[in-house]
Amino acid sequence: MAAAVGVTLEQAQKMVAAAVAKSTEMGVLMNVAVVDAGGNLTAFAHMDGAWLGSIDISIKKARTARMFDMPTGAIGGLSQPGGPLYAIEHSNGGLITFPGGVPVTGADGELIGAIGVSGSTVEDDHAVAEAGAAAL
Amino acid sequence: MAAAVGVTLEQAQKMVAAAVAKSTEMGVLMNVAVVDAGGNLTAFAHMDGAWLGSIDISIKKARTARMFDMPTGAIGGLSQPGGPLYAIEHSNGGLITFPGGVPVTGADGELIGAIGVSGSTVEDDHAVAEAGAAAL
Amino acid sequence: MAAAVGVTLEQAQKMVAAAVAKSTEMGVLMNVAVVDAGGNLTAFAHMDGAWLGSIDISIKKARTARMFDMPTGAIGGLSQPGGPLYAIEHSNGGLITFPGGVPVTGADGELIGAIGVSGSTVEDDHAVAEAGAAAL
Amino acid sequence: MAAAVGVTLEQAQKMVAAAVAKSTEMGVLMNVAVVDAGGNLTAFAHMDGAWLGSIDISIKKARTARMFDMPTGAIGGLSQPGGPLYAIEHSNGGLITFPGGVPVTGADGELIGAIGVSGSTVEDDHAVAEAGAAAL
Repeated sequence: MAAAVGVTLEQAQKMVAAAVAKSTEMGVLMNVAVVDAGGNLTAFAHMDGAWLGSIDISIKKARTARMFDMPTGAIGGLSQPGGPLYAIEHSNGGLITFPGGVPVTGADGELIGAIGVSGSTVEDDHAVAEAGAAAL
Repeated sequence: MAAAVGVTLEQAQKMVAAAVAKSTEMGVLMNVAVVDAGGNLTAFAHMDGAWLGSIDISIKKARTARMFDMPTGAIGGLSQPGGPLYAIEHSNGGLITFPGGVPVTGADGELIGAIGVSGSTVEDDHAVAEAGAAAL
Repeated sequence: MAAAVGVTLEQAQKMVAAAVAKSTEMGVLMNVAVVDAGGNLTAFAHMDGAWLGSIDISIKKARTARMFDMPTGAIGGLSQPGGPLYAIEHSNGGLITFPGGVPVTGADGELIGAIGVSGSTVEDDHAVAEAGAAAL
Repeated sequence: MAAAVGVTLEQAQKMVAAAVAKSTEMGVLMNVAVVDAGGNLTAFAHMDGAWLGSIDISIKKARTARMFDMPTGAIGGLSQPGGPLYAIEHSNGGLITFPGGVPVTGADGELIGAIGVSGSTVEDDHAVAEAGAAAL
């Protein structure tokens, strides 16, 4: 029988709950997505009234962070015109390379997934993603 | 400020939790997706070890049920070879027309969204979707 | 300066209005799309409460009818398992091959576009499409 | 039975008519799309001879404005190289982030949909979209 590939549903829901709580505390409306070590969607929440367009963005941020094992904003620094990874967003069915996605590591430091947040400024998105990841 | 379009996050998470509880009781591993009245993803959970390919299917089932305001299996009965809706699955970026998606109505009987479940037999998928929808 | 490729906006809107009027008379809620001789969307209307999933289907029916210059149902008769055009729906970004799409001809019998209707049974869809086409 | 999700067909057609009238007055050829509160296409018109490539752009502008509840140009100011939302256009199946799409609010200030216009300069596109939105 198959087991979870990295993050479990329990861990993912804990991260989502922490991210939603942080958003409420900050007074922002977010979409929060958690993917497992394989980049597959594990848990998701859309806060009432949050931007509908940020649903897809939050999922793409989580996938992007896991696909390259770094915060999404770090990739965005490399994908600008003239940069070494210019236009990498065209790969993998569409990447999102601005802040709001961060990899998540387990107890032994191994990568177990990623969390992606979208719905406010990229600074807010990143802060909420960090709060979610810190819940583990 | 925008409000929830139909189902709220609280309602969606309640349905997801009920569907996961029902799955555990039945001994099956499911993916559960809830969409709002606009067909947008509102909440999602992937049970540990559930089929990865069923993540997308559960979301498509929920969207299909909302897009035609009927259980997905009802569409599948019409989309068979020789049937009146043969190959309808090619529309809307891909529909899933076998059982496991059901519309969800609010207190006044108005349609507020849909739930889609995938991970076992279509009978199990449908039973879990019904259990999720009944939680409201 | 470019001119209309076949059907004009005035003609397209006339067809849409006739199709909506026919739908109201029949007591059905439809999506109605008209494409020009190039297969490009020219006019569209979604009746309040009509199936959301039928928006895309009505457009695809209109495009399918124009792309092969025949009613969509005629293609569906050839695309069944074992038929000569089996799985043709995979082409052109997705075709819809059940009834509801019909080509539209001008005063001289030349093909000027097509109309696609979706929202009820395929018999109703086809009847409304014919009513729309007959308005010219 | 399902009802309109936000904007009604009557409201959408009124906006389209106002936008087409404004375009005629300005001497430009436009494509005009209106989406409902769920981002679904509700009404559309392609003026005779307008750019064919702007059909898709007008629809994407309307969807983009609804998905982020702001004029499309406001997003474009943030999605430039070096900007905080660089390359956001890769999400949601393709966004259009230059001017021409504006959200539409109802009598109580609630968001009920959006209008997208494409066919001329972005200044013209935006002016026509505003004229369409003002018709309600």
